[in-house]
Order: sequence, then structure tokens, then C-alpha cells
Amino acid sequence: MKSKPFIDKIRDQNRLTLARALSKIENRDPVSRQIISDIFSYVGQAQVWGITGPPGAGKSSLVNHLIKTVRKKNKTIAVIAVDPSSPFSGGAVLGDRIRMQEHFSDDGVFIRSIGTRGHQGGLSHSTREAVLVLDAAGFDVILVETAGVGQTELDVMKLAQTVVVVLVPESGDSIQVMKSGLMEIADVFVVNKSDRPQADRLVRELVIMTQMGEHDSSEWKIPIHKTQGVKGVGVEEVAQSIEAHQENLKKSNKKERIYEEFLKAEILDILHEDLIENFNKLVSSESGKKILFDLKNKKIDPYQAFKLFKEKLV
Amino acid sequence: MKSKPFIDKIRDQNRLTLARALSKIENRDPVSRQIISDIFSYVGQAQVWGITGPPGAGKSSLVNHLIKTVRKKNKTIAVIAVDPSSPFSGGAVLGDRIRMQEHFSDDGVFIRSIGTRGHQGGLSHSTREAVLVLDAAGFDVILVETAGVGQTELDVMKLAQTVVVVLVPESGDSIQVMKSGLMEIADVFVVNKSDRPQADRLVRELVIMTQMGEHDSSEWKIPIHKTQGVKGVGVEEVAQSIEAHQENLKKSNKKERIYEEFLKAEILDILHEDLIENFNKLVSSESGKKILFDLKNKKIDPYQAFKLFKEKLV
Repeated sequence: MKSKPFIDKIRDQNRLTLARALSKIENRDPVSRQIISDIFSYVGQAQVWGITGPPGAGKSSLVNHLIKTVRKKNKTIAVIAVDPSSPFSGGAVLGDRIRMQEHFSDDGVFIRSIGTRGHQGGLSHSTREAVLVLDAAGFDVILVETAGVGQTELDVMKLAQTVVVVLVPESGDSIQVMKSGLMEIADVFVVNKSDRPQADRLVRELVIMTQMGEHDSSEWKIPIHKTQGVKGVGVEEVAQSIEAHQENLKKSNKKERIYEEFLKAEILDILHEDLIENFNKLVSSESGKKILFDLKNKKIDPYQAFKLFKEKLV
Repeated sequence: MKSKPFIDKIRDQNRLTLARALSKIENRDPVSRQIISDIFSYVGQAQVWGITGPPGAGKSSLVNHLIKTVRKKNKTIAVIAVDPSSPFSGGAVLGDRIRMQEHFSDDGVFIRSIGTRGHQGGLSHSTREAVLVLDAAGFDVILVETAGVGQTELDVMKLAQTVVVVLVPESGDSIQVMKSGLMEIADVFVVNKSDRPQADRLVRELVIMTQMGEHDSSEWKIPIHKTQGVKGVGVEEVAQSIEAHQENLKKSNKKERIYEEFLKAEILDILHEDLIENFNKLVSSESGKKILFDLKNKKIDPYQAFKLFKEKLV
């Protein structure tokens, strides 16, 4: 993979090159370091949106309609569907396939899913580097969608500039939203399947809760939208709110702060990956085995073992 | 917290001392290092059981009956209920409270829940150190229960010697079990709510799948139990299988290997915690800010920034 033609193909949004680069990143192939170095001078232009919410909230159909609103404005969009949850809760991959079919012939749409198994802490790392590549490729919008609302999903959402939280009346009341940590990360709320009973109650509760959270009058006021994702009802308004939030970020210098956090998290993830790699080497070396032996035999305790390991780690 | 009286109280299973020690560990209070050092010479006696499965599988009532079978043998048991999932999927805390009431007056039972929010990668670390403390306290059995089946739950289950995977017919077919990673970690399967339709089909599928997985005739044959957790039907047999698996571990030296992995994971988690602490210090120092500034301005790329950070990290 030579530098010059590779970056040109990325900049051309060559589908095969993009897919291969993202696979290398997802598999944590050593070559992914070179990929990031190669593309880094082109990043920083894209809008990064995050869409999250509990399973069954209808995120897939909502995303599908958001893609259409972006394309109507002649902007390009890349979607990363992150599925960190187990097969017991998710339908992301299926939704993904359906969307892929619909947008297959459209050069302005790129859809990719990032799986979960074996990733452990590395899922947000892979997703972040995928965002960097798609940003460098020149997509106007990068939409990161997660299925489920666990800690992994919250971590992934940290890399988005604008986070849309999708709820349905059935997903419970606003107290659950507060407990789940979604309240802290939401820039836009969507109450989907809003033709169902209890939708208005959820909207009212969210209105009260978002007002409670506003300490500063200059801060962004979290809009709450009612949608019917399958039909696309209300999606245009969601897109407008996202744009408004992006404008607000630019004006308030928050966009720069978000980018700084993005880069900090990237450095920390690389450090972590490097730590695991070196730890695995050390633990199977003679000196590593000796420390472990002493720990097993209680000559030392875990924190003493840690200090000995740390000294030996390069 | 002086060393001598503290460890005596832990060894006496003093409820207040245990609760405080576990809170320090859960909050990653710096004093938890001292706690682990103080108790470490007493660890290594307890059986560590893990119970996991998709939400709604009825783990709580099953655990409740397992507690009773352990108590009937005059053994003591400590339960750690780990709830890494969001409030949208879990009822662990409620189940926990119900059990707490029932066993409140029994000195041979200790129940503790470990929450999730803000823990990020640290949940399995906290749980592992909680196991160490309860092991040193002399509980015969430590039962770690997780709600849900995401990556975090799989990580937590790594610290158990015997893993019981609880399923219900509604949780789907065996293909989903395979995809979820539960197949690899199960030592005992339980099909709960087995009076429901499709229970026998799930059992048959599991039988085929566990047979497929057996490469070595000397290996443990994964038993599959049908239970009705609420009534306690079949729970005695599950307890017998757990005991049989523990015997098998001892005979085959696997118990020692599991303990080694437990200790390795503990060292790596401490190294990781130390990395985050030092990274946060460095990133707010002048030299850290300079690197970040250069990265933001694309004078360097993330992997160059990582190298500069690594050089400066103590």
C-alpha cells in the first residue's frame, strides 16, 4: 500500500480502498497506523453526527430518512453502524443491509458496519479511526449509529459533535433516560413512533427535564422532536435541529473543544493498545513469568507485581 | 484504617467493614490499593461462580435458589450483582433488593451490587478486587451475577471459575447463543422457565452445539439443565453440576490456570488505571498541551503524538 496512490484513492472515495482501509482499522492491523498517518492532514472538515437510543427505538429507519435529507442538499454522507451489543438485543445488521440495498447505487452514500466481538475496549478506538478516514475521504456528514445504550455505546457517542437520542414511548419514562446517561449526551431528542399512546407524555417529561438541565441561558436548548421514522414524518425537522446545533457549536467555539477531546481520546486509546501489546510480550517472557510466579505464591501482592511490570515495560 | 484491626474485621466478615472496603474499591479510592495488599495473603480459597445470560432470563430467582442450596450445606456465600447495562434492560437492582430482604438475617449470606455508571473499563477491575476481598473474608462461594450479555459482561465473567449461562426459550435460538460469545464461556447451561413452549427445542439445539464444541474426550462435558427458577425446580441439579465442574477443574489443573489469568488481568487493569491517571496529569501540563497543540495543527499525526506522550509518561 504505497502512500501516494492510496491517499488519492481515499480522497476519490474509492469504495474498495475505503472498505479495505476500514477493515484494517477494525482488525487493528499494524498497517492502520500508517493509514491514519497518511490521511491525517485531510481530516477536520466533516460534521460528525451520533444517533443512539435503546433497542427497538427505530433508529435504523430514522437514519435511513436522515440520509435522504442530506442527499437532497447534495451533500455526501458516510454511515458507521456500530453494534456493540449482543445478538439478543440488536437488529442493526439487518437494518444496515436493508439500507445498503436502497442506497447501493448512490455514490454519495457510504455505509459500513463495525462489529463488536473480540473488540473489548477497542470498539470506540476503531470507530474513531474509521471516522478519521471517512472525514479525510471528504464526506460532508459522518453519521455514527449505535444499537443499545450500554457504557460502550456512551463511549462511542463521545466522538460525535451532535448527538441525537432516539426514544419511543415503550422504552420507558424520562427517569430511565436520566439514569441511563443519555440525558448528559443528548443534543437533540427524538420521540419516535410518536403516533403511539404515551408519546405526548414522554415529550412533556423530556421538556421538563431538559429545562431543568439548562443552567446557562446562552447554552443550547435541546429540541424535542416527534417522528414516525418508518414514514419519515418529522425527520426534516430533526435534520434542521442538527444543522442548528452544528451552527451553535461553531459560534460558541465548542466544536474546537470537542475536536480536542476527540484527539485526546485517540492518543489515550493508542497508548492503551500499546500497553496491552507490551504487557502480553512481557508476561510470556522469563522475567514476566517470574513476577507472576511470585504473585501466585504470595511473595508479592498485585500492586507490587504491577510496579515490577511497569519498570520492565518499555 | 489501620492494617491489623482492618484485616481482622474482614476475616470476621464484619458487614460494615466489608461494605466500606467494597465501596472504596468500587469508587477506585486510592486506599483500595492498601486494602488489596492487606488482604492478599488470605485469598485463593473461595469457589468463584459466574451467572450470566440475556435480560429477562430469570437469573435473579435462580441465584436466590442457588443461595439456598449453598446454605443447606452450611457453606457461606457472597453474591456480587454486577449491572453494567442501562436501566432500559435491567431489573438487577430490584431483584437484588428482594433477595436482600429474604437473606437479611442470615450471617452466611452477603449480597452486594456493583453499579456501572462512570466505570467505563473499570467495572471488571472493581468486581475482581471485590472478589479478592470476599475471598479473603472466607466466604466459601462467591457468586458473580451479571445482567445482560454485552462485551462488559463477558469481560466480567472471565474472573469466574465456573460460568453458568442462563437462557429462556424466548431469548432466541442457539445461533444467537453462539453469536453472543456465551457458548465459549459456558461451563453449565440452564434453560430456565422450562415449562414454556420451545424449551425442549432450545435444549436439543444446545445439546447438539455443545457436542460440536467438544474436541477432546477428557474435556468437561457441558451439562444442560431445565429449571423453573421461581419455584426452584431443577436448581439442586444445577448446583450439583457446578460442584462437579469445580472437581473437574481441580483434577485437571485448570483451576491454577484460571487463577493465573485472574492475576494477569488484575495486573493489566492496574497498569491501565495507572496509565489513565498519568495521562490525565500529562495532558494538562505545559508539555502535554504543546503536543496536543501540534496535533490539532497537524504538525504531527496521532501516532507521533502518542510516541511523544509515551516518552514523557513516567
